[in-house]
Order: sequence, then structure tokens, then C-alpha cells
Amino acid sequence: MITHKITYRVIYGDTDKMGIAYYSNYLRWFEMGRTEFFRYLGLTYKKIEERGIFLPVSEVYCKYLYSAHYDDVLIIETSLDTSVKASMKFNYLILSEQGNTILAKGKTRHAFTDRSGRVVRPPELLMELIAKNNKTTYDNKIQ
Amino acid sequence: MITHKITYRVIYGDTDKMGIAYYSNYLRWFEMGRTEFFRYLGLTYKKIEERGIFLPVSEVYCKYLYSAHYDDVLIIETSLDTSVKASMKFNYLILSEQGNTILAKGKTRHAFTDRSGRVVRPPELLMELIAKNNKTTYDNKIQ
Amino acid sequence: MITHKITYRVIYGDTDKMGIAYYSNYLRWFEMGRTEFFRYLGLTYKKIEERGIFLPVSEVYCKYLYSAHYDDVLIIETSLDTSVKASMKFNYLILSEQGNTILAKGKTRHAFTDRSGRVVRPPELLMELIAKNNKTTYDNKIQ
Amino acid sequence: MITHKITYRVIYGDTDKMGIAYYSNYLRWFEMGRTEFFRYLGLTYKKIEERGIFLPVSEVYCKYLYSAHYDDVLIIETSLDTSVKASMKFNYLILSEQGNTILAKGKTRHAFTDRSGRVVRPPELLMELIAKNNKTTYDNKIQ
Repeated sequence: MITHKITYRVIYGDTDKMGIAYYSNYLRWFEMGRTEFFRYLGLTYKKIEERGIFLPVSEVYCKYLYSAHYDDVLIIETSLDTSVKASMKFNYLILSEQGNTILAKGKTRHAFTDRSGRVVRPPELLMELIAKNNKTTYDNKIQ
Repeated sequence: MITHKITYRVIYGDTDKMGIAYYSNYLRWFEMGRTEFFRYLGLTYKKIEERGIFLPVSEVYCKYLYSAHYDDVLIIETSLDTSVKASMKFNYLILSEQGNTILAKGKTRHAFTDRSGRVVRPPELLMELIAKNNKTTYDNKIQ
Repeated sequence: MITHKITYRVIYGDTDKMGIAYYSNYLRWFEMGRTEFFRYLGLTYKKIEERGIFLPVSEVYCKYLYSAHYDDVLIIETSLDTSVKASMKFNYLILSEQGNTILAKGKTRHAFTDRSGRVVRPPELLMELIAKNNKTTYDNKIQ
Repeated sequence: MITHKITYRVIYGDTDKMGIAYYSNYLRWFEMGRTEFFRYLGLTYKKIEERGIFLPVSEVYCKYLYSAHYDDVLIIETSLDTSVKASMKFNYLILSEQGNTILAKGKTRHAFTDRSGRVVRPPELLMELIAKNNKTTYDNKIQ
């Protein structure tokens, strides 16, 4: 697992008449999380697409535990499940600003496709970056 | 299972640079489906809220099988899983206009709460309407 | 002026914590209005794009007079200002279900461009359809 | 005029099939800009609402000059027109990351209302903060 964190502040447009963030917005936050995850890894998603490879979402899951409110700062924690190889699987935690409450937990799964939607092999550079980062994380752990 | 169908036409604002509907929009379509499901049942969600009962989403799942494109007419098929009692569980199918291709499958689960978010018992009128519709469906089946 | 009307029901995801429709959603409704306007005219916007012509929005204006609420049915009335030639200018009215209250008034202006964003001449078929519909409207008026 | 700048990175969900940011998203960015403007002034919009005062948008205008693309960092520059007293008028510039290209220009106007939508007088604390900041800006200019 490689993990990266960003923050996001809930805007008025994210809320609904229940006074809390509408449930589909979490999927936008998952996207923010994984975009910054790719940047952190060293290969932006934009660059991946420029190489002709796309990562459409094939599955999403989200469990809502506590509501997010207007003007709340959220921590979006994105982790790559490095045990999955032919596709990509991300896990997400949406946490309160202090980091002590899990507001929501989510997952997305992505296929590697070409522009026409055909499944292709993962780009090698990406695989190398994942392997490298995974090793670093592992090395840090065993020290 | 009680089932209700509506249609929705994909707008430009639903699409993304991949040329297909962005994944979070399906959750809006699920909402459209279940709102019309409640109306079809005989008690609108608006009326449920006016009685002080709310149905926040506690879980959502969606599997994306085929892309939805700009100007496509989609069939949104919403089914209530009547075996679930203390909460509500809906299943959704997003189908092509002709109804012969399943584009996406989804589920949502909802708690019954009061305005402050405390879990409450399901409103009796709703339970009666579900029982009545379920019986009709069952009666239709065994004929 | 050629005018076309559609209806739209406000969903939960359109509302914000003030309990009313969030202001950016009106621009989605304007899009719905003009998409159906093109279909009514006889040439869908999808077909226009397939001919390599795009109509990006260059200007938008909206005045909000009365709030739109959850589950409200809105009338979206779209009119083409046929006095504008090199670009397209639409006027919009968002009305209550009964049609007796104007909730919002809007305008959009659109350039004709090719895929690369260069300004091009309006497609002739579109101009003909507009001229034809305008004449019909005029003829109906003077009878 | 009091001015405040923030940045925002365009996400995939902001784009449409033209490959650029969909036009209604600019209104979300305007909201982000003015929310942070209030925080910078010293009274968050959240606190204003907690005092029972609301600032619904009564008018919006946006002129789109150049497209915003996926993964672009935008500068959102929000200015309060301090010559307007009974309501609030904001001007917005959406600029490229380097700040040398204006992508869009916008305006919003807001009424001061109570929870029921009745127009009320501007909160005094807000007026004082505006006066104070305006003076500082003025003093900085004449030095």
C-alpha cells in the first residue's frame, strides 16, 4: 500500500438541503485524491492519458459514516492496493480535519484502456514507479 | 422486489473529457430513480421529510459496464429490496434506451433518521405502501 | 424569436444547505433547454458536433428572482434571438410549474467554432432551419 | 475594491466532452473565491449564516475568454465592489497559473436576507471589516 493525503474544503455547492455534503461529491473527492496520488508517484494522470492510456472507473463503493458539513476541511487519504496488478484499485478514507474521525470509506477500481476503450497492459513507467514507491514504503517499515 | 422505471437523457454537463458520462453522475441518476420510485409507491420523499423523517445514504455501490454518452437516453430501473426492513436498500440498473444493454448496476442503502441524524423507526405509512405494492407484485406473479 | 419549452424536476442533488437549488444548476437547465430546442428545430446539437462544429458558451447571465425548491417541477423556456447572426444568442425563462411565476431569467451567447476552437461560419442547414421556423412563427402571428 | 486570490486545480469531473471545463463550474469557483474572501476579511460566510444572515445570489454574469483544461491550476481573483452598500457585488477573474492570461471574467450580486428570505440590513461587523480593509488598501495605495 502506498498512501498520499490531501485536504479539501467543502463548498456550499457540495451541500444539499439536509445541510450536509451530497453523496455523489465524495466521488469527486476520490478523484482529487487519486489525481494527486499519481502526481506524488511521479507520473500525472494527464501524462498517462497523453501516452494514450486511460483509466476509466469500473467500480466504486462508498460507505458514509459521519456527515461532512459546509466549510469543513476534509482529509482525503488515497491508498493504492499494490497487490492488484492488471487493473488499479484505490482505497480512500475521508477524515475530519483533525484526522481522528473517519467520515467515509471508499474504493475504486480502474481498467487500463486505450482511447477506444479496449483493455491494454499497464504502462511500464507507472508499474516501475509503483514498485519503487512500494519498496521505499516497505524499507521504511522494516527499519 | 418492487420495480419502477424512468428515463433520463445525458446532458453535456454530465460528460467528461473521455467523452462519456462522469462516474459520479450515476449517483444523481440513482437519486432520480428512487425519488420517482417513492412517488410511484404513493408517498413522495418530500412528504417523508415533511413528516420529519430523513433517508440519508449510508452506502453506495456502482459497477460500470458500458459507457453512457452525450444525448443518450438511459433507462433507470429502481427496485426496492423488500427483504430489508430496518433500513432501505435499493438496486439500480442503468440500461440503454432499447433496454437490451445494462450500462451500470448499483445499490444504495439508507437509514431512517430524524432531523438530528438519530436513527428512528420506519414510518408506518411507508411500510404499509411497500407491503401493499409487494403483495400486488406477488399476486401478479402467481396468477 | 423561436421558443421551445421543456420541464425539469429539481432533485436533492440540485439543492444546497439554504434548502434551494444551487445557483450553478440553472446553467445545466439552460443547457437542457437549448439541447431540446435544437432537437425541436430539426438538427440535434449532437449532429452539429458530428459535422465538426461546436458551440462553446462565450457569455452567460442569470437573474434569480424566486428560489426553486426540491421536487419542484420547473418549466424551462428557451428562445433563440434570431436577430443575432454570426453567433447564437439564447434567452431563457425558468418558470414555476403553473407557468405564472418567473423564477429566473437568463441568456447565453455561443460562438461557432471548429474542433480546434477557431471561429467558423454557421452551418447552412442550421441557418435554414432557423429561417424556416422563424417564418412559421411569423406566419402564425400574422394570421 | 478589496481583492483576494486563491488557486484551484481543474479536475476530470469539471471537464466535458469538448475537453474543457464545463461552463457551470466557473460559478462553483466564484463561490470558492468569495468564501475565502470572507475568511480573509475576518468573518467567514459560515459565521454570517450562524448569525441568521444569508447572502443568496441574485445575479451572475460570466464571460468566457479562453478555455480551462484538465489539471490546469487556475487563479481565482475575487474583488468586492465597495461602492455597493445595501447588497454585495463581487467581481471575479479566472486567470492562468502564471497570471498572464484572463480565462474568464465574472460578477455576482447578493442580497442580505434572513432565513425566510426577507431582505435585511447588512450585518454591522461585516460592514466594519469591509471599511477597515478598504481603508488599509487605500492607505497602502497612497503611500
